[in-house]
Amino acid sequence: MVWKSGITLIEPNHIVTRGYRQEDLIGSVPFASVFFLLIKGRLPDEREARMMDAIITSSVDHGTTPPSTHATRIVASAGVPLPTAVAAGILAVGDVHGGAIEDSARILQEWVKKMKKENWSYEQTARDLLNNLKSAGKYMPGFGHRIHTADPRTKKLFALADELGITGDHIRLTKAIEEEFAKTKALPVNVDGAIAAIISDMGFDWRLGKAFFLLGRCAGLIAHAYEEMTREKPMRRMCEQEVEYDGPWERDLAKNV
Amino acid sequence: MVWKSGITLIEPNHIVTRGYRQEDLIGSVPFASVFFLLIKGRLPDEREARMMDAIITSSVDHGTTPPSTHATRIVASAGVPLPTAVAAGILAVGDVHGGAIEDSARILQEWVKKMKKENWSYEQTARDLLNNLKSAGKYMPGFGHRIHTADPRTKKLFALADELGITGDHIRLTKAIEEEFAKTKALPVNVDGAIAAIISDMGFDWRLGKAFFLLGRCAGLIAHAYEEMTREKPMRRMCEQEVEYDGPWERDLAKNV
Amino acid sequence: MVWKSGITLIEPNHIVTRGYRQEDLIGSVPFASVFFLLIKGRLPDEREARMMDAIITSSVDHGTTPPSTHATRIVASAGVPLPTAVAAGILAVGDVHGGAIEDSARILQEWVKKMKKENWSYEQTARDLLNNLKSAGKYMPGFGHRIHTADPRTKKLFALADELGITGDHIRLTKAIEEEFAKTKALPVNVDGAIAAIISDMGFDWRLGKAFFLLGRCAGLIAHAYEEMTREKPMRRMCEQEVEYDGPWERDLAKNV
Amino acid sequence: MVWKSGITLIEPNHIVTRGYRQEDLIGSVPFASVFFLLIKGRLPDEREARMMDAIITSSVDHGTTPPSTHATRIVASAGVPLPTAVAAGILAVGDVHGGAIEDSARILQEWVKKMKKENWSYEQTARDLLNNLKSAGKYMPGFGHRIHTADPRTKKLFALADELGITGDHIRLTKAIEEEFAKTKALPVNVDGAIAAIISDMGFDWRLGKAFFLLGRCAGLIAHAYEEMTREKPMRRMCEQEVEYDGPWERDLAKNV
Repeated sequence: MVWKSGITLIEPNHIVTRGYRQEDLIGSVPFASVFFLLIKGRLPDEREARMMDAIITSSVDHGTTPPSTHATRIVASAGVPLPTAVAAGILAVGDVHGGAIEDSARILQEWVKKMKKENWSYEQTARDLLNNLKSAGKYMPGFGHRIHTADPRTKKLFALADELGITGDHIRLTKAIEEEFAKTKALPVNVDGAIAAIISDMGFDWRLGKAFFLLGRCAGLIAHAYEEMTREKPMRRMCEQEVEYDGPWERDLAKNV
Repeated sequence: MVWKSGITLIEPNHIVTRGYRQEDLIGSVPFASVFFLLIKGRLPDEREARMMDAIITSSVDHGTTPPSTHATRIVASAGVPLPTAVAAGILAVGDVHGGAIEDSARILQEWVKKMKKENWSYEQTARDLLNNLKSAGKYMPGFGHRIHTADPRTKKLFALADELGITGDHIRLTKAIEEEFAKTKALPVNVDGAIAAIISDMGFDWRLGKAFFLLGRCAGLIAHAYEEMTREKPMRRMCEQEVEYDGPWERDLAKNV
Repeated sequence: MVWKSGITLIEPNHIVTRGYRQEDLIGSVPFASVFFLLIKGRLPDEREARMMDAIITSSVDHGTTPPSTHATRIVASAGVPLPTAVAAGILAVGDVHGGAIEDSARILQEWVKKMKKENWSYEQTARDLLNNLKSAGKYMPGFGHRIHTADPRTKKLFALADELGITGDHIRLTKAIEEEFAKTKALPVNVDGAIAAIISDMGFDWRLGKAFFLLGRCAGLIAHAYEEMTREKPMRRMCEQEVEYDGPWERDLAKNV
Repeated sequence: MVWKSGITLIEPNHIVTRGYRQEDLIGSVPFASVFFLLIKGRLPDEREARMMDAIITSSVDHGTTPPSTHATRIVASAGVPLPTAVAAGILAVGDVHGGAIEDSARILQEWVKKMKKENWSYEQTARDLLNNLKSAGKYMPGFGHRIHTADPRTKKLFALADELGITGDHIRLTKAIEEEFAKTKALPVNVDGAIAAIISDMGFDWRLGKAFFLLGRCAGLIAHAYEEMTREKPMRRMCEQEVEYDGPWERDLAKNV
């Protein structure tokens, strides 16, 4: 069986990624731009390069409480290699942790297509989109946050997108949705929603939504695994007082088998 | 139980990583420098920033054959979320895949200490180090490559370290070891050995050795997972012809139980 | 924060799982029955106990080619702890590898409900179910196999279900579907389809579909990880000849940045 | 490249594991015995079969606090497939969680060899072994427990080993070590130490130590993942009050870059 791939060619002393020799990329093209190249098959222009770097950086860390970081630290405390602990954290990047980027991007991309086809305004599209989700018993992902009412990462990412001329239909529709929410109750765009809108305006497939978060967060997970391994005692765990058993009380096995 | 961490402070609308507000980092400090900050607790200077970016970029991808990439593609083909497939690849970053960075850095850091204490020359230290490993039945990791006799990544990384004034005792000792090898048989420094020497000259703990490789490779694994999911049929696997069973032939269970 | 759980109570020298002291279970209740207890909250009767053991055993191993086994061996060859290699294999239990159990059980459970409500025959239900899937552009999972036209595991599992009096509506509907297929082209029930039908007749939630496969396969993955670690050279990988690069040929970076 | 394996032969409608047709094993040989077959290459006799089942069963679950269970529940709460959550837990089976089985078995197997060669008594061997570890700054794994002073699982496993005639040099040496400890301070054998001694008396390679624990615990992890997914709200995490940031306070980025 032959494995085909268009990503990297390997020959003796010759390593070519998406058409570029790796020695030409190393030290000349920033890592975030090489990631863009790996995904898109072409190098970003200067604006795209800055935006891509900002997106990944905005995901690096959010303290010890998110499931990914929590899982990495717990596993790191059990006496395993650092990559094993980091991988455990990446496994927690799921539909409700980072997943809003994917879902939100999918919905935005679908409705921007409709909007353009039907020649709707952003306002009308936002209203229809929310009504449509509501009648299906769903909600719009990428809005609201447990802690932050005005997420500083969102504000900065949107400001950059404006400054770099990246802002397009998806960001505008996102802001229209935010305004539509505000008519009844403020539900501001969160960092997932901001990333979803920006990568959509940059032309990325929504199926890559979790990837941007995952790559940035990988940096934070490494830092947490290393802090756990070097600063804490092995085998971190909860005290028994934090646990409550609500299963059945003792049964007599002799009566059952 | 209270979890302590010195990495990121989370308060409403206020996210501070290693002392810097994340909105100040996003778009202003390159991702590789933020990774440096996460690990070291301080921002890199300009030279360190370029070197760090080069190190991570040098690990992004090496085609489909390495265990990490292979594992990611196999798992991606089984119908799982992208992060699950990427995590499977990261699990393959082990003692013989990326691990040479860690082992080589540990040995280099130990012997540079000895060298300085004893006031030895690089040549003498290289000779003693190799003899010492040899008599223990071990070999020096970070030298030689299955395919590349002159790895273009190594050459570029060392040139950059020179240009940026980062080259110090660990890189010099590495080159002395290469020369010592050359007296009997050429065994050039590979990319793992180069990264090990450079991160040691930058003052990183050898226990982080696999982390630089892992973070860079994460970008490539995402690209491979996405290529697999979008270009290949589900459930990639080997043909049966590629497998040879050499276990026992049929036994009669009735005679055994 | 208090974590609630109804599975196991831990007190000094006192470990109670689903109401039974673990020392009473150990050596008295077979492992497969303890698994049944963990999931269902009650011990199986003798028939259920035998069926459960057979189901798990039928998933133990299918050689080196399935994605799970392949991933475990690749990762095991990279110099990692055995559990890390086994976990990599479990990550490959996805929608197209083991996932047919879950999907098939979901569909069977849904249509058996309809069948009973509408008082349909198995034949009619099978026909409607297949037409319904077909018109939605979907296919019925759990039928057909790449290699086996008469999977010996399927035959044995169904024979046992009959013998133990477990056969009910879900197995009968599965056989009716097989007959419906046979009218145009033989597409026999595979082992995933058999397990899906049997666990449905045993009253298990379809969301547990992958769990039975995963637990059984875990035994095989351990054997493969151990065989790889003790019999093979480190860092197993494909030869370069098995790879074909179809990306762009060399580009001049100087022209792009 | 051809992959060799002695575990399972796959041919059309013909699946042979370690020499036995799978349809002969299913429903006739208990799962724990099939696991023994997979590892050892032969079926267990009746005593071995019961002991193997007891060993695996003794590892099934220990509530929500161990790292493996904790990691599985955290990851399960993030919106991922069940196998992904279970794998995250298996990643936590490390040197300080389940790892005592491996380490203890390795030490026992080494010292039983010495004991027999030198014709020492159990008492003398236990004393020398402990002194030897002590002078190396190490401790004997498999003794003492955070909660249990008389682990009910240990007692039951040792009683079974006696009843089944499995008790041999490794269990006897383990008990001699326990008595040696008791001279200064009681440090009873824990369940890891018991399993280590028993698998050693059954002739298993110590490198498989974590595998027995992992397989048994896999059953418990499935139950916890399922309980989390069906009973709890998504995205379990700690409250912010449980976290304390002790990193640097705000720095001015403008002064640093």
